[in-house]
Amino acid sequence: MTNQKMFNVAVVGATGAVGEQILKLLEERNFPINQLKLLSSARSAGTKITFKGQELIVEEATPDSFKGIEIALFSAGGDVSKALASHAVAHGAVCIDNTNAFRMDPETPLIVPEVNIDKVSEHKGIIANPNCSTIQMVAALKPLSDRYGISRIIVSTYQAVSGAGSRAIDEMLRQTKEALDGNDINPDILPVGSLPVKHQIAFNVIPQIDKFQDNGYTLEEMKMVRETKKIMGDESIAVTATCVRVPVVYGHSESVYVEFKNEYDLEDVKRILSEAPGITLVDDPANQQYPLATDSAGKPDVFVGRLRRDLGSPLGLNMWIVSDNLLKGAAWNAVQIAEYIAIGQK
Amino acid sequence: MTNQKMFNVAVVGATGAVGEQILKLLEERNFPINQLKLLSSARSAGTKITFKGQELIVEEATPDSFKGIEIALFSAGGDVSKALASHAVAHGAVCIDNTNAFRMDPETPLIVPEVNIDKVSEHKGIIANPNCSTIQMVAALKPLSDRYGISRIIVSTYQAVSGAGSRAIDEMLRQTKEALDGNDINPDILPVGSLPVKHQIAFNVIPQIDKFQDNGYTLEEMKMVRETKKIMGDESIAVTATCVRVPVVYGHSESVYVEFKNEYDLEDVKRILSEAPGITLVDDPANQQYPLATDSAGKPDVFVGRLRRDLGSPLGLNMWIVSDNLLKGAAWNAVQIAEYIAIGQK
Repeated sequence: MTNQKMFNVAVVGATGAVGEQILKLLEERNFPINQLKLLSSARSAGTKITFKGQELIVEEATPDSFKGIEIALFSAGGDVSKALASHAVAHGAVCIDNTNAFRMDPETPLIVPEVNIDKVSEHKGIIANPNCSTIQMVAALKPLSDRYGISRIIVSTYQAVSGAGSRAIDEMLRQTKEALDGNDINPDILPVGSLPVKHQIAFNVIPQIDKFQDNGYTLEEMKMVRETKKIMGDESIAVTATCVRVPVVYGHSESVYVEFKNEYDLEDVKRILSEAPGITLVDDPANQQYPLATDSAGKPDVFVGRLRRDLGSPLGLNMWIVSDNLLKGAAWNAVQIAEYIAIGQK
Repeated sequence: MTNQKMFNVAVVGATGAVGEQILKLLEERNFPINQLKLLSSARSAGTKITFKGQELIVEEATPDSFKGIEIALFSAGGDVSKALASHAVAHGAVCIDNTNAFRMDPETPLIVPEVNIDKVSEHKGIIANPNCSTIQMVAALKPLSDRYGISRIIVSTYQAVSGAGSRAIDEMLRQTKEALDGNDINPDILPVGSLPVKHQIAFNVIPQIDKFQDNGYTLEEMKMVRETKKIMGDESIAVTATCVRVPVVYGHSESVYVEFKNEYDLEDVKRILSEAPGITLVDDPANQQYPLATDSAGKPDVFVGRLRRDLGSPLGLNMWIVSDNLLKGAAWNAVQIAEYIAIGQK
């Protein structure tokens, strides 16, 4: 590409699990960077990170950090985004925010490039990256929605521990070692770091991700409900979610029941998904091939399989959707948006 | 109890994971046993097992093993049941079969005591124990079905590895150790021992339990579909299942969407479940209390929680059902049936 404009880019939360993946992708994809600024909390400031052979020092993120910045990628938690994104916008930056801070703000587009990249242009400085479990589901459902319309979604998730951060991964590995050695397990972080009750994740599954809401659903479940409607641009879709943490390091799996508005053909569904951008169809029961969390790790795609007609409703389809929660579920989706802004490609 | 008749009992598959639990329960519950015969394959014959302080030697199961036997508990695989149950019946025994061999046979009652113990009397020598994942679900749904009627069930399971036998547990623990040590993992048994393709279960989830059927569902999924209708005595219930193996040792968890025929009250649902036999309600989101696989291990009850109104259908309820797959899901359900036959109690 000739005469490509180069951008001053800030990565907020550069030392975190998602920030690390964002930097890896910016480097691999040769993102048009003029100046790269790495920002973090005061605690992590001073960390050295190598980018394209150059050593960069992470600085503490402050309101003044964004002077001259044109694209800021935030993944340092909702509180940091709430405190700093407006300052970045005031300095003229476009913020791509990977937290829950602005997702449901009516002024903020909530973007999955394969689904609604056309909404990016409506931004007023901030573009929100959806929740990991939502992204992979809507990416897989959108091409089917375009063809048949969707009236209803019931999803049960099998979510990897990396979604709760690298300390949660450490905790799971430590607990697992303790369990194998026959020692006592003392849960410390999961299900929710800031809440008092802790549960074992090693050799267990925990039906709680994030805090409970008044309606009995967790915030993670309500994110899937609300974000799906907003991204699909259809408040009439009925969505129900059960979000469950499983002892997996990378890769969220989802058992999804979807009910279409119109009759569908299963072979057509397979063809549509096999041709859809960002989707890889892995659906070969005869050879025991279907998406697996371990196979998805490190890959940008959303993997779809176990496609079969519902046994109750003629309009119902069951499917199994898997993707790396740190990539398409976070860093890769954010970098896709940044690339669209920078060079107009999805 | 005075003048309790004492029974000659055979346990077929006495050295297996379920057989071991059956013997433990017969001992703990002081089952009225006159003579106890332990049977197995030729390979395990000769094994010594202590029952109530007495050492018994496991014998190879043959058609002649059942002479004088009045109650035979089978859990040695479908082929063994198919080969030997008719001989046991011919010798006058009532067989309680924990395999898939006779479950869908119209002549064979399929019994979950809390649901349909009244059907036991229809037996012609064989009573079938349902599949583990079905038992815990119908035990929890039956009291709600009695009150509101059920039109539809959509279930996604999180099934423990012990359901695939003790060799599968060994494999998971070995793989987990290999993964923690950073070594290569060479899957050997799961998802299905007799099929060629193997997948890693350590830090992974596998959306296949048992073989695929022509309709794209696995046999485990179709067991849940067919057995639920038969046990509930209602072929009109629409049932769809997605069965998934998770790296848990004991305790199946299930995310269940149920649609009632009539309007329901959530507080009534909780009251009905809290009063239902064999059910323990664990549903306190404010204190992060819900059923967990690790908590269910070693306990006979079915644990139910995460009760919440569906966000799509006013007749829909979402719930989380957990039970020890070797106890209520297998050994305990079989011993409950045996007790009903022996002493007329549930």
